[in-house]
Amino acid sequence: MTSSRNDCLALDAADALAPLRAQFDLPKDVIYLDGNSLGARPIASAKRAQEVITGEWGVGLIRSWNEADWFALPRTLGDNLAPIIGAGKGEVVVTDTTSSNLFKVMAAALDAQRERSPKRKVVISERSNFPTDLYIVQGLTRLLDDGYSLRLIDSPDELQSALGDDVAVVLLTHVNYRTGAMYDMKARTAEIHASGALAVWDLCHSAGAVPVDLNGADADYAVGCTYKYLNGGPGSPAFVWVNKKHQDTFWQPLSGWWGHRTPFAMTPEYTPDDGIGRYLCGTQPIVSLSLVQCGLDIFAQTSMDALRRKSLALTDLFIKLVEERCAEFPLTLVTPRDHASRGSQVSFEHPEGFAVIQALIARGVIGDYREPRIMRFGMTPLYTSFADVWDSVEILRDVLSTGSWDKPEFHRRGTVT
Amino acid sequence: MTSSRNDCLALDAADALAPLRAQFDLPKDVIYLDGNSLGARPIASAKRAQEVITGEWGVGLIRSWNEADWFALPRTLGDNLAPIIGAGKGEVVVTDTTSSNLFKVMAAALDAQRERSPKRKVVISERSNFPTDLYIVQGLTRLLDDGYSLRLIDSPDELQSALGDDVAVVLLTHVNYRTGAMYDMKARTAEIHASGALAVWDLCHSAGAVPVDLNGADADYAVGCTYKYLNGGPGSPAFVWVNKKHQDTFWQPLSGWWGHRTPFAMTPEYTPDDGIGRYLCGTQPIVSLSLVQCGLDIFAQTSMDALRRKSLALTDLFIKLVEERCAEFPLTLVTPRDHASRGSQVSFEHPEGFAVIQALIARGVIGDYREPRIMRFGMTPLYTSFADVWDSVEILRDVLSTGSWDKPEFHRRGTVT
Repeated sequence: MTSSRNDCLALDAADALAPLRAQFDLPKDVIYLDGNSLGARPIASAKRAQEVITGEWGVGLIRSWNEADWFALPRTLGDNLAPIIGAGKGEVVVTDTTSSNLFKVMAAALDAQRERSPKRKVVISERSNFPTDLYIVQGLTRLLDDGYSLRLIDSPDELQSALGDDVAVVLLTHVNYRTGAMYDMKARTAEIHASGALAVWDLCHSAGAVPVDLNGADADYAVGCTYKYLNGGPGSPAFVWVNKKHQDTFWQPLSGWWGHRTPFAMTPEYTPDDGIGRYLCGTQPIVSLSLVQCGLDIFAQTSMDALRRKSLALTDLFIKLVEERCAEFPLTLVTPRDHASRGSQVSFEHPEGFAVIQALIARGVIGDYREPRIMRFGMTPLYTSFADVWDSVEILRDVLSTGSWDKPEFHRRGTVT
Repeated sequence: MTSSRNDCLALDAADALAPLRAQFDLPKDVIYLDGNSLGARPIASAKRAQEVITGEWGVGLIRSWNEADWFALPRTLGDNLAPIIGAGKGEVVVTDTTSSNLFKVMAAALDAQRERSPKRKVVISERSNFPTDLYIVQGLTRLLDDGYSLRLIDSPDELQSALGDDVAVVLLTHVNYRTGAMYDMKARTAEIHASGALAVWDLCHSAGAVPVDLNGADADYAVGCTYKYLNGGPGSPAFVWVNKKHQDTFWQPLSGWWGHRTPFAMTPEYTPDDGIGRYLCGTQPIVSLSLVQCGLDIFAQTSMDALRRKSLALTDLFIKLVEERCAEFPLTLVTPRDHASRGSQVSFEHPEGFAVIQALIARGVIGDYREPRIMRFGMTPLYTSFADVWDSVEILRDVLSTGSWDKPEFHRRGTVT
């Protein structure tokens, strides 16, 4: 039973992860429930940025490509990130954006199928997938101009019947950005493989949020970002993983010089590097890339199992408190109650969700809004406390009961909602 | 006549651009002649990074996408960069890497030709082009798998005869990375257009180095980096330009959500933004991206014409002093003597160029080496002084005359040469 703020404070006092919060810079007047969109700032990032900027760039200048190992950074960070997603050394690189990595991966998967099963020309994904995933497939299939198409399913239940001998690749996002619903990666991958298709997983809302076991699931390819639960910084470079069994055979078209076997030989013919290196393309933004390590350093102090236990406790508590204490308001839980199907966020629909979120932000509770009508609250066990959950629900109750959300300024849309 | 160090000091004293050097952090023990590979650090970058990291990210958190205009940054920086390359407002975005931007641009150009002249399936470029340009075309043509091919010319003289009614696009790098030779962009573009092909220009060694007039030349597409002469920081995001006449018609396959007309409507169908915005793809590395402005702020204090005058004076002086004072050593000038054909670097061949460059670096003169046998010396008039030129040639003379380059440690190759 958690029915008072004191109960929440007791949970925080007993929480072995609670001390990790001190490694983040969180404004005192804010309850931050948007780590699912942009992770909070590791305090170490400011010092690290100064080292990279004034030391490695300013003093080291061009020499830092060797001496500060800038060129190795995508691989070093990939190795450090790997355990969080159930991957091994040499299987991950941190580079580019999720969207461009997805382009590489989808092209690689279609290329593999073109050799194996040339009649398979359909990509399956979900209509409710994060739009950029669909846009990238649309761009790629239009470019290929050879009968490739995107088939959208409206719910996970439709996957089985959508699979057929024309399907080349299934692209699924492990945890849905809107609802927080999570796929059983292992079961779905097996189902996809049984039909003869390849499985591509988008881990943007999973990496650092829930335990992921890419090798255990025998997935084929995966991409994800580092700026949400991994706290790499705004727009920090994304990651891309490929199963060892494809590593030396896959091909991808963004074949820039960083993916070449001997980039500094400067030969006119492209020869791909062995393994994961061939996913690299162009010169990476070293300052932003360097800060990814500061987030990973905090993960190295705990485990995804411990984080998962706290995450489920936080989301359970948030759901319970909202349903008990805001029962008279038109809130509908969108996120699955079943633990096995839930990521690390809680989403509620409200007819005026946009304005309610703006009113909450004005009161210091930062969640966010996604069309249509969905209010998202991300629980990030590295820095979200049980008291944060209590306080945010109390402020939500106050905003709803006073109707303070119904002001013109809370209905006004910015560029980025 | 410049025949003494005092003459060089007099040139510096009379140089109206000399005070700009104080805006860069240059180590006291270094003569930096490698701004053509990685630009020096604007002093303002450290403070700006702290503002972005501790203020915009740490305190602003997710709100900074709107409040700090992060989402607009690729366009804002593009507008600020535009005058340096003869482009207008709304014609440039700063985003992604040169390699991935080149993929977008080449796909866009081939797509345009597919509609206009479907039989044109050849891309012309130079064998001596920077390799990533060739690798990207190889990746794209393999992906298209529809008869597209890359035709390499061995020298600019071969361009005219290589042009024919099968040529879709010509991809040239304005200033060659090895030799420093510069094309006449306007004349070559006219020649390319006359044959029915489209002209794509890589400005990596031009932007901020020499006056560029993309609109004056009526070029079609252009890409370039910001981390060389523009001093944006290691691996800072690249830029992409498209001629106004193509802006609302071009299509490119890396169609991520940042290029969507209404990215936050989260609709499953991709609808490209008007104009240059459709070159955007995924979420950008905001810290690295923000630092690009620090470099542009210094360019705003002068003009490309003034920089060009000093650049030619520096490269003229460097050539003259090397040829006079190192006449007895096997150095061969690779860079054109003709001003109209010269970028902002001087390259000399030496049979042991690699070791000589390492020995120079050990003495504090930072140039770099490119296969085969080429020693590159970049002159960056924002911070290179005439005394730097004198001193570097004296140290080169000493290294060559004492044979101090011939030590085992100077023959050892690192990852990045």
